[in-house]
Amino acid sequence: MLAAALDIGGTKTMAGIVDQDGRVLSQRTFATYTPDWQRHFEECLEALHACMNECGAEQPVGLGINAPGMTDVNRRILCNAVFAGWTNVDVYSYFHQRTSFSRIIVDNDVNSCAIGELRFGHGSQYRDFVWITVSTGVGGAVVSDGRLVRGAWGCAGEVGHLKVEYDQPALCPCGQRGCLEAQGSGTAIGRMMRQAAERNSEFSARLAQSHLNTDAKTCAMLAAQGDPVCKGILKQAAVYIGRGISYCINLLNPKVVILGGGVATSLPLLVDDIQSVVQQSVISTLQGVEILYTKNGYNAAILGAAALVL
Amino acid sequence: MLAAALDIGGTKTMAGIVDQDGRVLSQRTFATYTPDWQRHFEECLEALHACMNECGAEQPVGLGINAPGMTDVNRRILCNAVFAGWTNVDVYSYFHQRTSFSRIIVDNDVNSCAIGELRFGHGSQYRDFVWITVSTGVGGAVVSDGRLVRGAWGCAGEVGHLKVEYDQPALCPCGQRGCLEAQGSGTAIGRMMRQAAERNSEFSARLAQSHLNTDAKTCAMLAAQGDPVCKGILKQAAVYIGRGISYCINLLNPKVVILGGGVATSLPLLVDDIQSVVQQSVISTLQGVEILYTKNGYNAAILGAAALVL
Repeated sequence: MLAAALDIGGTKTMAGIVDQDGRVLSQRTFATYTPDWQRHFEECLEALHACMNECGAEQPVGLGINAPGMTDVNRRILCNAVFAGWTNVDVYSYFHQRTSFSRIIVDNDVNSCAIGELRFGHGSQYRDFVWITVSTGVGGAVVSDGRLVRGAWGCAGEVGHLKVEYDQPALCPCGQRGCLEAQGSGTAIGRMMRQAAERNSEFSARLAQSHLNTDAKTCAMLAAQGDPVCKGILKQAAVYIGRGISYCINLLNPKVVILGGGVATSLPLLVDDIQSVVQQSVISTLQGVEILYTKNGYNAAILGAAALVL
Repeated sequence: MLAAALDIGGTKTMAGIVDQDGRVLSQRTFATYTPDWQRHFEECLEALHACMNECGAEQPVGLGINAPGMTDVNRRILCNAVFAGWTNVDVYSYFHQRTSFSRIIVDNDVNSCAIGELRFGHGSQYRDFVWITVSTGVGGAVVSDGRLVRGAWGCAGEVGHLKVEYDQPALCPCGQRGCLEAQGSGTAIGRMMRQAAERNSEFSARLAQSHLNTDAKTCAMLAAQGDPVCKGILKQAAVYIGRGISYCINLLNPKVVILGGGVATSLPLLVDDIQSVVQQSVISTLQGVEILYTKNGYNAAILGAAALVL
């Protein structure tokens, strides 16, 4: 059994064909063309056809689509993709009219990652977990007893907007202050690096000498090499991520917390500091919840899209 | 259809007979005898019999019991009632051996309040809500799509131990600092009153003159009369309660948040300040969630116990 899968992200899009065991049989990655969703969707169609041609004659059972923003799952509409200015995009109708798939499901990309984890990842062992994407931004999804908790309006899981700093809160893209996304995301790590470079000329010179950017990837690389400034920045981010995770554990008693996204690839550098905050912040009966990196790794999102229809 | 119901609380216990429409047909209230659970359970049995005698010949369909602490719902055991030092009390066996009820359900008192709200209260309108008891302590329960979210180990809903203060956190009975229970409970309000009385001799004299205690009930009464110190204390408590509620809304997208417990009876004095914090703390798509006082009022817990078996 095969699924066609489309993960439309903020900067890049991945199309692929995935089998029922979670193997990605073919895939194409390309930039997301934000000025015009119709033109971008045309490119998605071409990529899907190319992937299908590569996989022979077997017809996928459906098309799963990750939409990059708030999504109305029932109407299969992307309500709002803030980064691109796309609003009320009728994703379903577009692909329904231009493909022969009888089953097309559209969901928010973070929900989809959690559904993919449930189908192909740690979900085979754990039926109660919180999924957190830590990347440019921070998103989340709650799985309770093997089901995604959607909430009253389909907006549950806003882990990125849990307040984790009240004293000197940073401004969040959502307009509020002190959100986990503003304090512990890849963007926040980049900002902390720039602030450190402004304060610390030695650090600034080190970055310039090696032609290094002030981003989360560089921060993790330097921290892994023992750089004390970058280690301090990651520790600060870990404290905030740990606060966010603690709220999830106290409220939901998940069996595990599963992290995905670019920043989460540095989990080995972060996990001790995260766990130390969690130990100080969750009630004793809830101590010991594991924090794991997604079993689906880099493919978490595309496997999630496939899991929507498999 | 009738239910026998028993709400064993930290200081008082209520036994009652409740019908299928949520009417309390008879009830007895008495102090919880904490030194010896067996002696207390004997008194519970006597009270239950007295209530049943009052209601005539109809036999209740079962007995619902609220246990005052961490409860193993499947084994029907009270694992730990911290205030009384009761551990691993086999509630089911005790009442099974001494009564003729074929159906006996035991649950934690806060879960039970949420189940009671679902059956008899605002739950007829709302299937996604967070229940918060604000009393001597703070407890919570999460209802998603009409079902109680229990979590992996049955410990979900620890709203009272969400951290709401990082800068000058107060010590919580759980041993940690900055928990909602330590900052916004009835106990915390009492502590803030004593601290205010120490700092402010005029306030202290006013309390002494009227022979008033430093507790949440007095604080609410004086605030309602316009006392600026007590209004300030309630405002501070409301900020913390608002922070806790905001985490719940961002994570779970409930349709409403429902408050019960002694402090919650002062909701009209608190709700504007709570809502103002919530507006600054939840993402824009989740604004406008109502905060309501339980429809079951003072009977929330006993109706909850009845709802366990009805």
